[in-house]
Amino acid sequence: MSKKNIDKLSIFALGGVGEIGKNMYVVQYANDIVVIDCGLKFPEEDMLGIDMVIPDISYLTENRDKVRAILITHGHEDHIGGLPYVLKHLNVPVYATRLTMGLIEGKLKEAGLLGDTKRIVITADSELTLGSITASFFRTNHSIPDSVGVCLDTPEGRVVHTGDFKFDHTPVNDQYADLQRMAEIGKQGVLALLSDSTNAERPGFTPSEKTVGTAIEDVFRSAKQRVVIATFASNVHRIQQVIDAAEATRRKVTVIGRSMVNVVTIAHELGYLRIPDGMLIEPEEVNKMAADRVVILSTGSQGEPMSALTRMARSNHRKVDILPGDTVIIAATPIPGNERYVGRTVDELMRIGANVIYGPGSVTGVHVSGHGSQEELKLMLNLIKPKYFIPIHGEYRMLRQHGLLAESIGMDREDIFIVDNGETVEFQDGVARKGSKVPSGNILIDGLGVGDVGNIVLRDRKLLSQDGILVVVVTLSKQDGAIMSGPDIISRGFVYVRESEGLLEEANRIVTSTLQRLMNENVNEWASLKTHVKDALGRFLYEQTRRRPMILPIIMEV
Amino acid sequence: MSKKNIDKLSIFALGGVGEIGKNMYVVQYANDIVVIDCGLKFPEEDMLGIDMVIPDISYLTENRDKVRAILITHGHEDHIGGLPYVLKHLNVPVYATRLTMGLIEGKLKEAGLLGDTKRIVITADSELTLGSITASFFRTNHSIPDSVGVCLDTPEGRVVHTGDFKFDHTPVNDQYADLQRMAEIGKQGVLALLSDSTNAERPGFTPSEKTVGTAIEDVFRSAKQRVVIATFASNVHRIQQVIDAAEATRRKVTVIGRSMVNVVTIAHELGYLRIPDGMLIEPEEVNKMAADRVVILSTGSQGEPMSALTRMARSNHRKVDILPGDTVIIAATPIPGNERYVGRTVDELMRIGANVIYGPGSVTGVHVSGHGSQEELKLMLNLIKPKYFIPIHGEYRMLRQHGLLAESIGMDREDIFIVDNGETVEFQDGVARKGSKVPSGNILIDGLGVGDVGNIVLRDRKLLSQDGILVVVVTLSKQDGAIMSGPDIISRGFVYVRESEGLLEEANRIVTSTLQRLMNENVNEWASLKTHVKDALGRFLYEQTRRRPMILPIIMEV
Repeated sequence: MSKKNIDKLSIFALGGVGEIGKNMYVVQYANDIVVIDCGLKFPEEDMLGIDMVIPDISYLTENRDKVRAILITHGHEDHIGGLPYVLKHLNVPVYATRLTMGLIEGKLKEAGLLGDTKRIVITADSELTLGSITASFFRTNHSIPDSVGVCLDTPEGRVVHTGDFKFDHTPVNDQYADLQRMAEIGKQGVLALLSDSTNAERPGFTPSEKTVGTAIEDVFRSAKQRVVIATFASNVHRIQQVIDAAEATRRKVTVIGRSMVNVVTIAHELGYLRIPDGMLIEPEEVNKMAADRVVILSTGSQGEPMSALTRMARSNHRKVDILPGDTVIIAATPIPGNERYVGRTVDELMRIGANVIYGPGSVTGVHVSGHGSQEELKLMLNLIKPKYFIPIHGEYRMLRQHGLLAESIGMDREDIFIVDNGETVEFQDGVARKGSKVPSGNILIDGLGVGDVGNIVLRDRKLLSQDGILVVVVTLSKQDGAIMSGPDIISRGFVYVRESEGLLEEANRIVTSTLQRLMNENVNEWASLKTHVKDALGRFLYEQTRRRPMILPIIMEV
Repeated sequence: MSKKNIDKLSIFALGGVGEIGKNMYVVQYANDIVVIDCGLKFPEEDMLGIDMVIPDISYLTENRDKVRAILITHGHEDHIGGLPYVLKHLNVPVYATRLTMGLIEGKLKEAGLLGDTKRIVITADSELTLGSITASFFRTNHSIPDSVGVCLDTPEGRVVHTGDFKFDHTPVNDQYADLQRMAEIGKQGVLALLSDSTNAERPGFTPSEKTVGTAIEDVFRSAKQRVVIATFASNVHRIQQVIDAAEATRRKVTVIGRSMVNVVTIAHELGYLRIPDGMLIEPEEVNKMAADRVVILSTGSQGEPMSALTRMARSNHRKVDILPGDTVIIAATPIPGNERYVGRTVDELMRIGANVIYGPGSVTGVHVSGHGSQEELKLMLNLIKPKYFIPIHGEYRMLRQHGLLAESIGMDREDIFIVDNGETVEFQDGVARKGSKVPSGNILIDGLGVGDVGNIVLRDRKLLSQDGILVVVVTLSKQDGAIMSGPDIISRGFVYVRESEGLLEEANRIVTSTLQRLMNENVNEWASLKTHVKDALGRFLYEQTRRRPMILPIIMEV
């Protein structure tokens, strides 16, 4: 006789599906909720003026007494960046490995939250009791050290979440993925696997990070002058290889860019970077050194307009110039949307006369992805051997491709759940089905405002950005509604006013005659006056210019 | 004794360097100016509200009596799109091959300019006398039929402009490039070559368009339901192959999307498309046909939000639905900046349950570039054997790569001129040097306005798009400057007003007290009042929200 569970296990994403970034997965059994990761994403192009985006956590705050923990798989922004916002509203313990916690604490410190939050450093061998759920971990390879996958044992069965991963058989600093532990987990039986889909569209294997080290060292050796290398600040393995290559080629390294300095400092303090004494020099010392003895390790691999590399490319960095004949390595792939920024930076570097190494890592050799390609995703599926599979982390097409990969190694289509944020997968008595929906979505952060910019504000910003605004002000008499002052028309972002005096004068006449006509007809409700002014003016401007600026009529009364 | 030229030959771009699109090159000898191409480009992401961008032609209008002709190399937007604007200000004869002219006339008709412009249809064998310059042409391969390169014989020597090209040894409809003519031109001696740099970063050879036909036919044959194929409307070769593949697999074709219908109509009328009788069906007939007998040829290969494919993907196209199990082929590479749009369209198609063929043409086989890769660029250089080389058409890094290719086949670096728009290369007595600059730049088109939106308007639109606007209105007494009405604060795009009443009330108090204080201090110049209100309010709002909306103080007087 089989034991019947009354309680259900449910799994869902509050962020992480259909987007890069903002990763947050939730596993709930009865009254115990475990959250995995707490990321942020950068705004999409239609989110005008927004600084960043975090997940809607209203489900968690409504069930705050059930939330046992936030487990963090690794220290990338899209997995930790939401913590300073989320912990303010949901102060639950955060568990992370040592480097990850170092990076988290940097963030919490900036936000003034270090004193108020509960943080527990774990290792890959830790085991946590979180109500009825037991959490354990396994080491993975990724483009940042100390990455782990999560194994959750629940009364309903075992759930495995890979975090971001690749399989790197020659990892930097011997940070091997724990294949044995993964195999053991799989052997013991897994109900559901949640696995990283970022590179599910890519055939084959992702090359080892070690191959980048060799390529970088070759460039350092053959470059006759300075070498500037830009890469993601969080890629500590890559930074280690830059330092190793500098050592091998008798160059010194200077570090520029706030986030790069920050990560190098934290990773060095915590022992994740091995830096020989005297290797690091201050940016000010660069000009005193022979050009072929210097490496400049910089941010800006995405062509970000304010980054150190972009400023150097435009020759307006305070401390370091790039000179003709210098070599610049862009050791990164542009994130979709950043291609133009990177392209412009390359153009500017070439105008200076620098030799620029850029383009696909498969050609240059100076960059590899931190995410596993199709063969690695199949390997993970075969190691864990789950009964059910939920592809995570990626656009819908990537999740779908990952699903097809699972089918290709023999899983049944009905055992694969491709779900949107907020859609739950429920497990009861070993059987999975799509469950109800929980609230999910984007919370927009603009300055200090969290969630106070919504669709109306964004729609107005969009309108304003397209054709600008015309403000029409008129002062009317309280007694008889006569025009006491105005109408005045002020425009911004519409036309170049000095060259459009005629147009604006005619617009003024139209407003005046519209008001006059309405008064003669005894129309004097403000709302009606405003609507008529708006319509008449809008029509006129569209006829004259084919533009539709926002029109804001304001009536004052004296 | 060698003949000394008093007059100079000069060559420059008014558009086409450092950007994709807006191509326009100028060759001038003494009093004779020949213009090659007249393109437009789509606005960059910081050109808010702008519809399109054309070259600054003030040099040409100032020398209008010298401009002999605009020669058009082929019918793509980035080579003909500027004509409706430019011809209004510079009504000179336009020369183009037959299909190219058909597409140009479509544009001029829409702009109501057909009656007023002089258009001369040429063939690849035409020879034109343009003052002291003789123009002849040579057939090239490109992703649109009837593409030509231009050969200009000037008293100073011969100048060759390739237009856009690739070398396709198995062209569709037997439109072979004229290798013999190119070789002959080269043999006779060429002073300067201007050659297309679009794919200068790409190693190897660009595959033949024919390979796409085979791949498409395979998909048509194996698809069990409808096939939707999206590609550039102007790619008549590709359209021919879709029709051929449909015929071979006993499918009918329906054409949707305005520009696709337009091109198919023009190309068919002019004999550039061979369409069997009964092959084309109306979109309305699609639902009556067996699903495996239909091909839908559509616009939208760039994921354009309003295109036919995007509307079908969102299930809101008026006539055609995409059903689960249908196959969608995206036969194009995203133009930089469009990757996200294409990705979203793919996601939406997959959510419907369509099989989507997308991604790099090198993997899918359903797309090839229309531009030659490095080996073809070298072939062109070796055929033409110029004394001097000016790489054209491309971002700076592509021009630079093209220059390196020329060096790799033996040209001297000092004979290669990488120049920006407006920088002239001057030739006298067979010697080239960088000359003076002519005006060049972007003319922005917004609605009916040509060039009336400049930096100030764009800066305001940018500001408005980031944090919105606050309008502060107050009516003051003419007599004593007392506040008669207001201050009223109206905001748009700043905060969600209903949830920010407290903030706006406090803002109001700050404006009132600022005005009161100034009056007590007898400050009553409007400019000063406005500045103080702006500063006080801006400071308060930044402290409270970390946002910097545009603040527009308006003072009325009664």
